Amino acid sequence: MSIRVVARDHVKPECKEEALKLIKEMVEITRTEKGNISYAFNQDLNNPEFFAMIEEWESEECLKTHMESEHFKRIIPQLGAMMAEPSRLEVYKQIV
Amino acid sequence: MSIRVVARDHVKPECKEEALKLIKEMVEITRTEKGNISYAFNQDLNNPEFFAMIEEWESEECLKTHMESEHFKRIIPQLGAMMAEPSRLEVYKQIV
Repeated sequence: MSIRVVARDHVKPECKEEALKLIKEMVEITRTEKGNISYAFNQDLNNPEFFAMIEEWESEECLKTHMESEHFKRIIPQLGAMMAEPSRLEVYKQIV
Repeated sequence: MSIRVVARDHVKPECKEEALKLIKEMVEITRTEKGNISYAFNQDLNNPEFFAMIEEWESEECLKTHMESEHFKRIIPQLGAMMAEPSRLEVYKQIV
């Protein structure tokens, strides 16, 4: 049973291209991390200004290591400045 | 690039056991459906009365077929009656 993260972002329209460059870098590095099962950036089909990183990790420990990584600490604050409102972060543990 | 669904549920505490039985049936059937990549029921680590079905599908067409299935039409309304508030449904298309 794995850990899943849904991080929903409202990206400022004028920042979309710049944000996508950083997100592509983040995705490429994170997919090589220990314990990462999947890490995908998605667009809301009904609200196209909203996006979500939907993640799956083997354990809470692996997620914690990810959030302490150099690339997380470098890229996430840059992305934060491109958001129209604070991101909504939900962390789940699979039970079925 | 796949389709992901995040369906967040606030289950009435007194309905949790009964809801879980229906959810286990729903999960077992849905994982055999055409185009289903993953279908997992999860508990919010920070708000344990909240749960989310987090789903991955090969296409919007496969998701549509799922939502028209006998088991969906039979089980989802029963689960709806066990919620403390309406579920929050988000549908995403992977872009990275």
